[in-house]
Amino acid sequence: MLRAPLSPDETAEPRRRDGCGPLLPTVVETRPMRQRLFEHLRAAGEASRADLSRLLAISPASVSAISAELLAAGLVEEVDGASRDSTRGRPPVALAVAPRAYYVAGIKLSDDAHSAVILDFAGELVGEATLPSGAHRQPVARTLVETESVLDAAILSAGLSRADLWGVGLGLPGVIDHARGIALWSPILAERDTHLGAILSERLRLPVTIDNDANLLTLAELWFGHGRTMTDFAVVTIENGVGMGLVLQNRLFRGGSGLGMELGHTKVQLDGALCRCGRRGCLEAYVADYALVREAQTALDWNRDTAESARQLLDSLYEHAKDGHAGARSIFRRAGRYLAVGLANVYQLFDPNLIIISGGQIRFDYLYAEDVLAEVRELILDTGRTPPHIEINAWGDMVWARGAAALALSALTEQLIGEGRVA
Amino acid sequence: MLRAPLSPDETAEPRRRDGCGPLLPTVVETRPMRQRLFEHLRAAGEASRADLSRLLAISPASVSAISAELLAAGLVEEVDGASRDSTRGRPPVALAVAPRAYYVAGIKLSDDAHSAVILDFAGELVGEATLPSGAHRQPVARTLVETESVLDAAILSAGLSRADLWGVGLGLPGVIDHARGIALWSPILAERDTHLGAILSERLRLPVTIDNDANLLTLAELWFGHGRTMTDFAVVTIENGVGMGLVLQNRLFRGGSGLGMELGHTKVQLDGALCRCGRRGCLEAYVADYALVREAQTALDWNRDTAESARQLLDSLYEHAKDGHAGARSIFRRAGRYLAVGLANVYQLFDPNLIIISGGQIRFDYLYAEDVLAEVRELILDTGRTPPHIEINAWGDMVWARGAAALALSALTEQLIGEGRVA
Repeated sequence: MLRAPLSPDETAEPRRRDGCGPLLPTVVETRPMRQRLFEHLRAAGEASRADLSRLLAISPASVSAISAELLAAGLVEEVDGASRDSTRGRPPVALAVAPRAYYVAGIKLSDDAHSAVILDFAGELVGEATLPSGAHRQPVARTLVETESVLDAAILSAGLSRADLWGVGLGLPGVIDHARGIALWSPILAERDTHLGAILSERLRLPVTIDNDANLLTLAELWFGHGRTMTDFAVVTIENGVGMGLVLQNRLFRGGSGLGMELGHTKVQLDGALCRCGRRGCLEAYVADYALVREAQTALDWNRDTAESARQLLDSLYEHAKDGHAGARSIFRRAGRYLAVGLANVYQLFDPNLIIISGGQIRFDYLYAEDVLAEVRELILDTGRTPPHIEINAWGDMVWARGAAALALSALTEQLIGEGRVA
Repeated sequence: MLRAPLSPDETAEPRRRDGCGPLLPTVVETRPMRQRLFEHLRAAGEASRADLSRLLAISPASVSAISAELLAAGLVEEVDGASRDSTRGRPPVALAVAPRAYYVAGIKLSDDAHSAVILDFAGELVGEATLPSGAHRQPVARTLVETESVLDAAILSAGLSRADLWGVGLGLPGVIDHARGIALWSPILAERDTHLGAILSERLRLPVTIDNDANLLTLAELWFGHGRTMTDFAVVTIENGVGMGLVLQNRLFRGGSGLGMELGHTKVQLDGALCRCGRRGCLEAYVADYALVREAQTALDWNRDTAESARQLLDSLYEHAKDGHAGARSIFRRAGRYLAVGLANVYQLFDPNLIIISGGQIRFDYLYAEDVLAEVRELILDTGRTPPHIEINAWGDMVWARGAAALALSALTEQLIGEGRVA
């Protein structure tokens, strides 16, 4: 496999997001031309040189030169482009990312189960595994053992070995300093300020990048979901916690020093419901799974001795609500209204063109019903503009891990093709 | 006076905000070298060529070339730099922005009074005026007449005429589409979707740029306040409304399509207090002047017949609170607690290094007391990080108008020295 990064290349001219004035946000396109071409290829699956030139507004000569370099490095290969234009004699040759040039792993840790996937260099899934987590909150040492287990299971399912991996992306809930690889606080870890990136990297002897899980889901939308056609959008995630990610001009936005976007811990009620972070009135204390479980115990007169799991309890709550149980309906109704508050606040502050409610377990359609979306419209400033577009994107359980793998692929791509800043 | 923009110049190499990884926000330095040099000069007052080279990391040869061009165009002049280093024989020659090369006006409209300032090209105040506004909310036609009056009064006070002005920056509360010059909704205008920029520009026969007033105050902080030493900060404004501005890498951030940052209309209480936007539970419905006035009427058993102004009523409320009046204290206490919620949410979402509570009328120290700041610390996620730094910056009444003038100066500078995109 190839390990040497390519030589530094020309940086594309910075492009302003628009040409409307001097004070607009200076979020500009900084990816080198080579990187833009490569990422387009990975997103599109395959493309002819002529398409690349037209779609990316890069001269045919530059496309040829960049293609030649990527082909020589083994990062891209020529494929039979017959499927695109088979009617005119000889099928055209298309370019595609060389899938077996590299493999990466993505791992998502949660308080319920850990999951891992293996992706090839083209971003295709080649292996996956899920293992239950030992405890709701546990010491890092224990989490590391479980992380290694789920990773090895995924590698095995792909028919690969650890030596075949370039690196690992890891996501977990909490306040994660991506740049420094530190988990400052996570609801699933007993310790604070864990240098999780470095510790895991040393343990696996592989490059490891870590991030907040909502950012990973946002990355999954960017790489494999809506982001293939959108450049600016917000993602709100709901599972055992509420998270948020923001994409501006194809890139994750993280706020001032990289630790913003904590939507789940914005306050929507003074002296409100207790959150697992220890504060009161956080959005997730009304909307997240654990908040519903807490109320379900009251509504359904839950008996601790039956040892029903949280997921079973929620499923039961949902069934009761569908059957017209007043308490159960009231729980979903309130959660839906607070969710509407959260979505309205995201719109009011970040003004995204699209909000995607995304996650692996979007099961409770009460939360995503038309009356919740109507409530969002009733909460936001009436400016005469089209109300925000809100979409629901229910992925399978493995989407978080795929986002984590995208993080690793992104680091790898940056190293090979980008500005070469990744260690 | 000079009117011709300089020739397009070299763009500085894009600088990443940090070198920490591939997925950090791509807010980069896109100002041309010439613009950075010029803006540094304006902020610093004066600087020698050697200082400019050292502080901006531009080669001495480039500094010389750029200086020569700016001097030839009359935008910069040589001044006696004696004050900097008078001990070593001949005083060094320093550069400074040529103050009389251009003049701009800045106007701030509110429901109470309008204010206007005239700044010279170096950003120094040369004239100002304030006029009461006719009504709380009024037709645009009436507002335009008042705008012209306050502008002319400021021009007169500067000893200038309208022909001496390059252009006007105008700020008002509400949802303002800066890029298109449209006031989508403003609490002080009877109409919606007003093409205020174009209408006023035609009326005055001058270039006009409009913006949300909180963005102007943020610009004032950036040009004349804390921004002279900080590159990233958030500003929260409180007067008859609650606004917010965000500066990232020396530039205003406006969210997805430029209409975000509506902190005053984020919801902090489901089915809460009525806001002047018509919705319930907005932050400003608990914190803004009008919210305090509303409650003061109850607390102080206010008699409508006395025709006391809102400002007098608030002053009276404040005196009562200082004297221990329970109702008055409770009003400030609740407003302070909701303000803490707003500040905590700003920190949780945008993660700024500094939050500046800024405005012309920061009078009620109950709102900015230590217990409010302590409440912010109690509301945010405990990640072990240093809690956000919060500063109070009380300006005079004219600060909003100075920010508006900075908007015009910024547009002018961009046209003369920047990428030349301004019409």
